[in-house]
Amino acid sequence: MYFVDYRDHLGIREGKPFKATLFRGDQLLLGVNCLAPGQGQPVHMHANQDKFYFVLEGEGVFTVGDEVRSCGPGHAICAPAGVDHGVTNDTADRLVFLMTMAPPPLG
Amino acid sequence: MYFVDYRDHLGIREGKPFKATLFRGDQLLLGVNCLAPGQGQPVHMHANQDKFYFVLEGEGVFTVGDEVRSCGPGHAICAPAGVDHGVTNDTADRLVFLMTMAPPPLG
Repeated sequence: MYFVDYRDHLGIREGKPFKATLFRGDQLLLGVNCLAPGQGQPVHMHANQDKFYFVLEGEGVFTVGDEVRSCGPGHAICAPAGVDHGVTNDTADRLVFLMTMAPPPLG
Repeated sequence: MYFVDYRDHLGIREGKPFKATLFRGDQLLLGVNCLAPGQGQPVHMHANQDKFYFVLEGEGVFTVGDEVRSCGPGHAICAPAGVDHGVTNDTADRLVFLMTMAPPPLG
């Protein structure tokens, strides 16, 4: 599983974001998240993990710390450890982004 | 610097790949690399760092372990700690990819 096409790992889930893991190492996790219209990830933080989102399709409203911005394909949204972050999809289209976290979450 | 558009950080460098840092946390580094036609990153490995590439523009021949594949936009190339990896751009067009490493390299 060294080579992965994110388009082979898309989906949609009723009621909450669809998440697929593309790569899990000892040091980092790479996943792809799909948010249907109206779905979101509430603002939260990880005390010891750095995280970034990278938008591939659609548009979302991302929060990091006190900043809130609408981001589309090509935008990276970076949340250092200890900084609040979240996202909502207020559009009529699917929002797809990479999600990377280091170190990876347990489980 | 929570929000970054990778297109604002592209460049070209004579003789070797152009590299820009998009985010450096304590736990991970996110950068963008631009390889002109003919440029490459020789096969190498990091004993304790997981790494992935994610292709944004162009096409490259990526090696991970014993696998060699031509990859384009949407492909993630994942090199766990201790596994050889590298890339060459044998095309006539620029190759652009995200590069993430965890933990980040020193310096």
